[in-house]
Amino acid sequence: VTRALSIGLLGLGTVGRHVYRLLGDGETIAGRAGGPLEIRRIVVADLGKDRGGAAPRHLLSDDPHAVVQAPDIDIVVEVMGGLDPAGRAIRDALAAGKPVVTANKQLMASSGGELLALAERSGVDLCFEGSVGAGIPLIKPIRESLAGARLRAVTGILNGTTNFILTRMAVEGRTYADALAEAQRLGFAEADPTEDLDGRDSAAKLAILASAAFNVNLRVGDVFREGIERITLKDLAYARELGFAIKLLAIARTVGEEVEARVHPALLPLDHPLAQVADEFNAVHVESEDLGPVVFTGRGAGGAPTAAAVVGDIIDVARNLRLGVGGRSRAAAPRAPRIRPMEEVVLPYYISLQLTDRPGVFARVATVFGEEAVSIASIVQKSRGEVADAVFVTHDAAERGVRRVLERLRSLDVVKALVNSVRVEATV
Amino acid sequence: VTRALSIGLLGLGTVGRHVYRLLGDGETIAGRAGGPLEIRRIVVADLGKDRGGAAPRHLLSDDPHAVVQAPDIDIVVEVMGGLDPAGRAIRDALAAGKPVVTANKQLMASSGGELLALAERSGVDLCFEGSVGAGIPLIKPIRESLAGARLRAVTGILNGTTNFILTRMAVEGRTYADALAEAQRLGFAEADPTEDLDGRDSAAKLAILASAAFNVNLRVGDVFREGIERITLKDLAYARELGFAIKLLAIARTVGEEVEARVHPALLPLDHPLAQVADEFNAVHVESEDLGPVVFTGRGAGGAPTAAAVVGDIIDVARNLRLGVGGRSRAAAPRAPRIRPMEEVVLPYYISLQLTDRPGVFARVATVFGEEAVSIASIVQKSRGEVADAVFVTHDAAERGVRRVLERLRSLDVVKALVNSVRVEATV
Repeated sequence: VTRALSIGLLGLGTVGRHVYRLLGDGETIAGRAGGPLEIRRIVVADLGKDRGGAAPRHLLSDDPHAVVQAPDIDIVVEVMGGLDPAGRAIRDALAAGKPVVTANKQLMASSGGELLALAERSGVDLCFEGSVGAGIPLIKPIRESLAGARLRAVTGILNGTTNFILTRMAVEGRTYADALAEAQRLGFAEADPTEDLDGRDSAAKLAILASAAFNVNLRVGDVFREGIERITLKDLAYARELGFAIKLLAIARTVGEEVEARVHPALLPLDHPLAQVADEFNAVHVESEDLGPVVFTGRGAGGAPTAAAVVGDIIDVARNLRLGVGGRSRAAAPRAPRIRPMEEVVLPYYISLQLTDRPGVFARVATVFGEEAVSIASIVQKSRGEVADAVFVTHDAAERGVRRVLERLRSLDVVKALVNSVRVEATV
Repeated sequence: VTRALSIGLLGLGTVGRHVYRLLGDGETIAGRAGGPLEIRRIVVADLGKDRGGAAPRHLLSDDPHAVVQAPDIDIVVEVMGGLDPAGRAIRDALAAGKPVVTANKQLMASSGGELLALAERSGVDLCFEGSVGAGIPLIKPIRESLAGARLRAVTGILNGTTNFILTRMAVEGRTYADALAEAQRLGFAEADPTEDLDGRDSAAKLAILASAAFNVNLRVGDVFREGIERITLKDLAYARELGFAIKLLAIARTVGEEVEARVHPALLPLDHPLAQVADEFNAVHVESEDLGPVVFTGRGAGGAPTAAAVVGDIIDVARNLRLGVGGRSRAAAPRAPRIRPMEEVVLPYYISLQLTDRPGVFARVATVFGEEAVSIASIVQKSRGEVADAVFVTHDAAERGVRRVLERLRSLDVVKALVNSVRVEATV
């Protein structure tokens, strides 16, 4: 009989309960993990809280440090979330030579490189598939299955809340506020959705994905970030008229020796695979030298899907542990990436203005673009009496030049308002 | 210094040349594989053939048996294709205790279970990511990343040729013959496309995928199969009118203790994720108890993408070999599946008839459906003078009942022609 491997489960929230439930199907799991697994300790913040029998009381503890250090714990599974005490517990576990499975986006995005190096030194696994895209397989396919392809870019819709809002605005003509309220009603947005709306959630996930794709240590702070708060129904309508959807994209791309990493709303051609990704769905589009585009799509959030990813990692770790090959997943040490400054990033821009509607105005605006060497690809203009809406899409231009254009337009007397400016992602 | 692992490459066709080229990037590959890899022997059928310097002559051999047995070969990579001599060489290699990477769809679909058991007994890896979907990561994500989810169904568009033809017919109104010729011109269809058109290619890939998803030994002969030859522009038009696309689908599903496995053209709701997959693209849609739908999309054919998948497998095998954990990828032994007979499969049906256009005809047709307990969900009828087109979509019905309906309709005097019958895949 193969000895059961013991798990210390840190956290019994939504994800933790689903992990507990999935591991309860002992026979199936044992078959896949090469032998039985047993949850021996569960760490919760408040021992007194009523958990409605989610797990037996005698397994509960409120001391992560003690559980992680306990000699009878083989694998540490962290699903508490947040930087601390989760980070402390994971460092303790790795230092004690115990493999760790975590779904902690925030921690991996800020300290992934350091934790992976610690795991490497201790010769143990650190797996984090659940930290991005919940149940959509991303980290392992990108690190392992695509290891034979030379990856150039990962472009993702990594946040379900903002994608739901933008989809409902575009499809049903709902306002931003109305679509957000609907997302909250359906449970796709949290009570405080700030981190989703301002792109912080996507930026953290992008840091994790890009680090895996390019074998670098990219941190969330390296990611340029802009949220969807300024996108209006008018922008969505003009974008569609020009053949584009608007999505909150997370983009990481190698350009020579540098890495571009940015999260912002972007116009995306309607025939781009990501333009079809609707509502709360997430998707990641991978470009490489050797393959055509590969796209992974699915629901990117939720307790059960995240737990399934965590259990997949647990199975992997358990098999490595039985085979005595902890730390198998690492190969070359990641490099520190040279981040391309946002001012040097080159892409087309959508610029929406309100102009005084009289002769010569258009020429003055066009002159500003020309003088800054930003060339115009398409224009939509609509007179509304006193004023006219004018929407420009530029050709590829360095961000620096576009910023100068925007600056100069703002001070032109014929420009009544610089309504919005949104980047365009045209590479399919 | 880590010793280089030696590869015996069987085959130097399109895939083989790309494998040779990709492994030439020694430094990157060594970083990922945990040490250098070296192609030491290449087996070709004809030593005299001019290969334009694709590989050094001194590496070439025409004796697969000798190369596979050679003591200085650590890993065997088979990209010849076909049942033999590829199968013989792979059996020899596994029996000699050498891990094998193959992209051989035909062989894995007919003998995958036997070969995997042989690898298991020898304690070595047998990897075959390139055998399905070329560079789209499928086998490993399904077997490993999704090991924590309880998979229920895999539904794929696994053949680029037929998807290209059906897309061009639907989008541009081209005839079947015209779209096929275009596919051949663009290199998406072979000179003899029979195995693509009649569903044999998809059935082989489905056998491999379903075996991985459900941990069973499903063979290509277990898969029910029907090709796209009978699909007409009229079917595509009526389907669209009813809210459906038509795709050649490969479907495997667990139903209780049984497995359904079938390849056939199917009506698919236009909002189904696979309905959007156009032209030569492939996609696999995975359903499970624990996740929402997960979809993998990409180009499913081509020398470079297949080679990238092969190299991903080589990297995996090399790391396991260095760690001394050959055969790591296996866990529970696969079961022999109970295949659900096609007559018992339950799904809706699209049935297109030409009827004599006079009073009472419709009632006689509807009576046949009613008497066989096949209930009708929607009807389109269009008079064309003497005759009328009538298109029915049924509710869920057992195939057996629908076959009886079709049989009886054929013998009704008011039915001028049973134009077509196509299954409907309504589960999203």
